[in-house]
Amino acid sequence: MSDICGMKYDEYVKLVTDFHGTVAPGLIIGGYMVDMAYKKLPKGGLYDVVCESVKCLPDAVQLLTPCTIGNGWLKIEKIGRFAITFYDKYTGEGIRLYLDNEKLKDYPPVQEWFFRTKPKHDQDSEALLRSIKEAGSSIISVQKVLVEIKKDNKEKHTIASVCPVCGESYPFREGKDMCKVCSGEIKYYSKI
Amino acid sequence: MSDICGMKYDEYVKLVTDFHGTVAPGLIIGGYMVDMAYKKLPKGGLYDVVCESVKCLPDAVQLLTPCTIGNGWLKIEKIGRFAITFYDKYTGEGIRLYLDNEKLKDYPPVQEWFFRTKPKHDQDSEALLRSIKEAGSSIISVQKVLVEIKKDNKEKHTIASVCPVCGESYPFREGKDMCKVCSGEIKYYSKI
Repeated sequence: MSDICGMKYDEYVKLVTDFHGTVAPGLIIGGYMVDMAYKKLPKGGLYDVVCESVKCLPDAVQLLTPCTIGNGWLKIEKIGRFAITFYDKYTGEGIRLYLDNEKLKDYPPVQEWFFRTKPKHDQDSEALLRSIKEAGSSIISVQKVLVEIKKDNKEKHTIASVCPVCGESYPFREGKDMCKVCSGEIKYYSKI
Repeated sequence: MSDICGMKYDEYVKLVTDFHGTVAPGLIIGGYMVDMAYKKLPKGGLYDVVCESVKCLPDAVQLLTPCTIGNGWLKIEKIGRFAITFYDKYTGEGIRLYLDNEKLKDYPPVQEWFFRTKPKHDQDSEALLRSIKEAGSSIISVQKVLVEIKKDNKEKHTIASVCPVCGESYPFREGKDMCKVCSGEIKYYSKI
């Protein structure tokens, strides 16, 4: 097992614990994925990132790269696959790294965790982390991909309008005369 | 202007710059929102967070609370309003903090930035940050809310299945015989 983006394994574990709260197995594997991406990508490019799962992986990206959810360089596509794509923000060319089922056979604890074949409380988390550390980047595969760059970034051209119902600012778009909460499109809370 | 979650303004600016890359105005206001939430919420509770915008606010939450995108305690609802909701993860009771248009009148640079009435390159970013610092939490309003807690968290009961097309693991759900990329539901890249 090797370093993770120039950090010793234990240093990365500390970083993960401080930010994420726990040493999530997915976040350690995510660390090896980001490390591998840095080694594979041409130096000096400007890369954006897509995570194909909202679980764990985004935090590895946020901890190890300049890309965050709030600065827009990291996006999430809710596909549920354990994969991260890094791509040149101008050309769309990039690489997609994914946890490769075929490569998990030599690491039964990782396989059990990944396929949830054992209930979480029956898993031996220390053995799992040992197995992840031993596997390092050997369980990750890489594909070359071309990401679709949206030329007309609609977000940038929206007008900040005031919703006539709640009185708050929202991004006005043709045919959207009120914000998504007041129109009923999104409902996640009620006032008390 | 007061401290932000026990940090001096300049300390917070440093934290923001390291994580987010720039001193984004929205992230400074977001800091005052999180600070206000901590002051308003009963101590000792376990709170989850919803950001109503993907821009800036999620990073304030990730920097100042234990909630991150990857650990699932922070969620984003793409409403486009400048608001953050903190709620008790068991009862759903909480508070929603939002930038209050009515309160911006005394802070013209903030108002200009928020309503994008001046192109970004014509804005005086130093004057804007000074105005934000001066305003502190005085431009934020708070509502009591009840957030809908999804009782049957489907995510937890999904089976990790292997997609027969790409061969990768994906969360199997009734009627979904392949992953969202192979079924065409989500398309963000092509292989090269």
